[in-house]
Amino acid sequence: MIINMREGASEQEIQHVVDRVKEAGYQAHVTRGTERAIVAAVGSNGRRHELQALAAAPGVAAVVPIAQPFKLVSRQVKPDGTVVDVGGVRIGDGSFVIIAGPCSVESRDQLFSTASAIKAGGAHLLRGGAYKPRTSPYEFQGLGLEALELLSEARRRTGLPVVTEVMSTEDVELISEHADMLQVGARNMQNFALLRRLAKTNRPILLKRGPSASVREWLLAAEYLLAGGNQDVVLCERGIKTFETETRNTLDLASLALVRELSHLPVLADPSHGTGRPTLIAPMSRAAAALGADGIMVEVHPCPERALSDGPQSLDLDGFSRLMRSLAEPLRAVARGWDRS
Amino acid sequence: MIINMREGASEQEIQHVVDRVKEAGYQAHVTRGTERAIVAAVGSNGRRHELQALAAAPGVAAVVPIAQPFKLVSRQVKPDGTVVDVGGVRIGDGSFVIIAGPCSVESRDQLFSTASAIKAGGAHLLRGGAYKPRTSPYEFQGLGLEALELLSEARRRTGLPVVTEVMSTEDVELISEHADMLQVGARNMQNFALLRRLAKTNRPILLKRGPSASVREWLLAAEYLLAGGNQDVVLCERGIKTFETETRNTLDLASLALVRELSHLPVLADPSHGTGRPTLIAPMSRAAAALGADGIMVEVHPCPERALSDGPQSLDLDGFSRLMRSLAEPLRAVARGWDRS
Amino acid sequence: MIINMREGASEQEIQHVVDRVKEAGYQAHVTRGTERAIVAAVGSNGRRHELQALAAAPGVAAVVPIAQPFKLVSRQVKPDGTVVDVGGVRIGDGSFVIIAGPCSVESRDQLFSTASAIKAGGAHLLRGGAYKPRTSPYEFQGLGLEALELLSEARRRTGLPVVTEVMSTEDVELISEHADMLQVGARNMQNFALLRRLAKTNRPILLKRGPSASVREWLLAAEYLLAGGNQDVVLCERGIKTFETETRNTLDLASLALVRELSHLPVLADPSHGTGRPTLIAPMSRAAAALGADGIMVEVHPCPERALSDGPQSLDLDGFSRLMRSLAEPLRAVARGWDRS
Amino acid sequence: MIINMREGASEQEIQHVVDRVKEAGYQAHVTRGTERAIVAAVGSNGRRHELQALAAAPGVAAVVPIAQPFKLVSRQVKPDGTVVDVGGVRIGDGSFVIIAGPCSVESRDQLFSTASAIKAGGAHLLRGGAYKPRTSPYEFQGLGLEALELLSEARRRTGLPVVTEVMSTEDVELISEHADMLQVGARNMQNFALLRRLAKTNRPILLKRGPSASVREWLLAAEYLLAGGNQDVVLCERGIKTFETETRNTLDLASLALVRELSHLPVLADPSHGTGRPTLIAPMSRAAAALGADGIMVEVHPCPERALSDGPQSLDLDGFSRLMRSLAEPLRAVARGWDRS
Repeated sequence: MIINMREGASEQEIQHVVDRVKEAGYQAHVTRGTERAIVAAVGSNGRRHELQALAAAPGVAAVVPIAQPFKLVSRQVKPDGTVVDVGGVRIGDGSFVIIAGPCSVESRDQLFSTASAIKAGGAHLLRGGAYKPRTSPYEFQGLGLEALELLSEARRRTGLPVVTEVMSTEDVELISEHADMLQVGARNMQNFALLRRLAKTNRPILLKRGPSASVREWLLAAEYLLAGGNQDVVLCERGIKTFETETRNTLDLASLALVRELSHLPVLADPSHGTGRPTLIAPMSRAAAALGADGIMVEVHPCPERALSDGPQSLDLDGFSRLMRSLAEPLRAVARGWDRS
Repeated sequence: MIINMREGASEQEIQHVVDRVKEAGYQAHVTRGTERAIVAAVGSNGRRHELQALAAAPGVAAVVPIAQPFKLVSRQVKPDGTVVDVGGVRIGDGSFVIIAGPCSVESRDQLFSTASAIKAGGAHLLRGGAYKPRTSPYEFQGLGLEALELLSEARRRTGLPVVTEVMSTEDVELISEHADMLQVGARNMQNFALLRRLAKTNRPILLKRGPSASVREWLLAAEYLLAGGNQDVVLCERGIKTFETETRNTLDLASLALVRELSHLPVLADPSHGTGRPTLIAPMSRAAAALGADGIMVEVHPCPERALSDGPQSLDLDGFSRLMRSLAEPLRAVARGWDRS
Repeated sequence: MIINMREGASEQEIQHVVDRVKEAGYQAHVTRGTERAIVAAVGSNGRRHELQALAAAPGVAAVVPIAQPFKLVSRQVKPDGTVVDVGGVRIGDGSFVIIAGPCSVESRDQLFSTASAIKAGGAHLLRGGAYKPRTSPYEFQGLGLEALELLSEARRRTGLPVVTEVMSTEDVELISEHADMLQVGARNMQNFALLRRLAKTNRPILLKRGPSASVREWLLAAEYLLAGGNQDVVLCERGIKTFETETRNTLDLASLALVRELSHLPVLADPSHGTGRPTLIAPMSRAAAALGADGIMVEVHPCPERALSDGPQSLDLDGFSRLMRSLAEPLRAVARGWDRS
Repeated sequence: MIINMREGASEQEIQHVVDRVKEAGYQAHVTRGTERAIVAAVGSNGRRHELQALAAAPGVAAVVPIAQPFKLVSRQVKPDGTVVDVGGVRIGDGSFVIIAGPCSVESRDQLFSTASAIKAGGAHLLRGGAYKPRTSPYEFQGLGLEALELLSEARRRTGLPVVTEVMSTEDVELISEHADMLQVGARNMQNFALLRRLAKTNRPILLKRGPSASVREWLLAAEYLLAGGNQDVVLCERGIKTFETETRNTLDLASLALVRELSHLPVLADPSHGTGRPTLIAPMSRAAAALGADGIMVEVHPCPERALSDGPQSLDLDGFSRLMRSLAEPLRAVARGWDRS
């Protein structure tokens, strides 16, 4: 940490900061400029938050961190990429994983027709919502347990491991019995009670980026999981909120490349939520493959215009086939191993 | 709802939409333009989500809602403003309520010195965090039960009712025993499991706006509470995320005026989180008073530079006194009753 | 400037940075932490951009500025607030200046009826667009010279000095003959050719904040004017672009308070563009007054539903009267001199 | 256009809207719902802005457009993609065009070493700034005419056509003598005086997207050029402003795919400005290629740490070679013609 003093800060104020830096467990190095001084706090075992609070000390202009605040998720700590095994499917090993399925599980027919179609098309994992976070209380909230049982059955039939969202600490146990991977939705990315509970499961976690979360906040949310004991974390970028309204969100593909640089965790793109427009799903999926993402998550529904949620951004079964064909060529290129950096 | 057809949509596609509109429980009125047609869905008892899904039907360009999606929070439904009673303090009756206190409860001394100072300065409610949502797992997470007991004791000593944040459904009962009002933090605004649980308490709720929540999403989060049975909801704007980095967030004061227009619920401003800069708290508080907000929530700490959380944006005890003096004149003007529209 | 070295940067890399810092005209102070080193560049007469470019040097993690990049607009350089005289109206002297008028000058009748109504209502300056920046080439682009002549005539009739927008270097001379103050619109805030030209006029400038300009970029745009020789600059916040769509823009009132802290230049709010909703103009104007703004700029039209531009956000003549009545009480409070800090 | 009436709007108010719709040159169709009415304006030859202004009429809730406001840039008007010829290089014909060069032209050596390196690496066009838009007046503003002459010479030596930015109407003629393509920078995207002037040149235009411009606003800026007579327009996305600060901007790749859908104009990505981080340039370039962009524009400098502008985001000559190698495989995949939709 660097503590920047204000122009004209007194010697007493500088000394006070030096004393507090030492009190916090660091060494203090003062550099005096022509107009202002800075105090560098040196060491790695001090109490970081005590330095941060010095922003409120007299004569201090700002406290500037010089290191990233996350540890266990950092690639510095673990240079090799993490591979997460989800019911036998490996995410992060250089392959490109396709997670597909309906936004919500609505019925046996809807789920099973989708599951067999995506299986035939080449998907690796089945997604489907049982408990749905909905902006309005008057919208469809998911079938709950019934959906979980249908997902279990779909897995038995197709062999596809299942991903589903968990919204509450109270549901973790039940959902873990039925799902191979637990998803933390974008709106719950900083639901720390939920993160702490999920750190204690033995299920891998799919952690979606919050719509206004910085990459740093996202990685710190993952840090909650790793610090709590769960190393099997896959990140998923699903678009951030910006001023642009032609797309539902702005899919921040650069964040995927950046996360691969900063962290060893695998990272996926969700072009369905990320764009909200079916016509943009194939091009953004190809883009994700080309930049080195570990896979995608897409919404597929046998009849999008009858979907109880997110129909307008879902692919129909034909659309999913076309997507997979459109991905074939770039994935062959990926497989030939272009430089993924 | 209006369903806009694409240019060149076929008669068959238009007819299909008409059929689906009727199926959803509405009447369908078609208007044919020179280049495109629109289908209006008329009625108020149909299944709204079935119309929304038509965005995915062939030939449809967009589905445009023409009514606001919230009901119980709407001023149309209840023209008179709601007054929420929090331990005898009335919010929403035209007065300007001051909620003050430390970000986190850190110790007996810290809490009691703050509580008596804000009481003396004219605050109406005491805030203090017992369970803290923190971006990093390595930051101070709150004293938990010990903090709740200190808050209870502070209430007995000062007579100030207490507001504290609840982060998890599992904590609702315990916190309700100690606090007069339960706060839903910005990051939990769309934690629907928590909202549903809080709808069943008999405690009033302070619902903070999420950092990337639109006014519409915020009101729909409140709708969860009202629809679930809890009418005592106070809204609080605490800044949204934008590109501006000189302030911690961008305090969207216009949203307060807009919420007063759209809803009957009282609404507060939180200039501490909203700006992150102590020097901006007084001017933004005066602004909130002048535009007709029902009060403010501010962070106060006896020694901000030693605070375990949010020190840099906290007022010290002197700063709180100055804030109250700075508010005196505009509040007299408010009291004389300028047009609050 | 602080140059943060990467973890594991070599001695050679550190030495290279030290050499380059000296080459750029600064002293270099190295502080070695347990994991990384920092190099502080000390001095005030070096070549700042050479330090910035070091972000690209081997072993460097980041270059962090510790001083604000603007000079002449800074309150540190000139602690007393600047007062700008616009045809006898003083902006920045503690009074609250009202600039009102139509978005575009459309006709003699429209302009003169508006001008006399706002004069009667208590406005100090008349605004009206002659050359209009319009998003689409098919929208009304302004009456040009005819509008300028009408504005001149309106000034003669009412005595109100005139503000109008200049969009191009080529129009500066002509517009200066007819207007008392030249406005730089939000979309031209970083039209540096225009700023450089306006720095050479003897007319005061109203510099609107760009819709995605940070406060720092806005003040640097003003710095172009001051550095080029024009000291008579008034700033105007008119809303920034965010994800919120219920309001046309998000009026960033905190930026006004912040600008007053950082700079000596007067600063206004434009609640018409800032909100896009007539019902929000009065509350946001009162808020601006209460926080210490130097005035407001509002759009007024005798018949908003027939306006050729910005009708939906314009007040009609009655609405303007109501606004002025709604402001009376807070302005009396301001006049009694509450603490403006 | 659809005019949504408020709930409870009177018959008189509805009739007034109907009259005004007809007055504006449209037919009016009224649909009465159970709670509110809508009025559809039918026709394509009316005065659109008169409908928009009805948002201010009594009883009106909102005016909702149902067609895109641009015409000449629309793919509906011209289904085949436009191919723009820049000194013999064709942009938009299915190939992937590489524009590379330094942010600013700084010296003969710097420009010529860069130009020959990018030529050798496979670039198609040379970029280099002669007149630079800089946030601060104290930063390097470009070499002006000297730079233009160096660019001309670099073209003669390498055969690479030249792209350079024009900031002012006054410079258009001079720059046109030296450059093959004129760039409108992001901050000038809505400098309408400049757009109108450029519509009259015979040089192709590279129109960068403004940092807070929606796709719609961007296409309307292009519409100014086409409507004014210049059909040779290439669009370039260079990142939008969002809350994320780890990257300089957020490169909105979905906007490229969307622009290809809405418009016939070619569209490029600028990953240098779009990310501000050299390590992200290669992955984002591959992504742009994979989604169907017509090319990229990247900043290259022989010694980024000595660059007078944008050094930290520039590739060095080696970095450019690596970029081109990293692109080879995806470009072969593109060449084999995957579905570009």
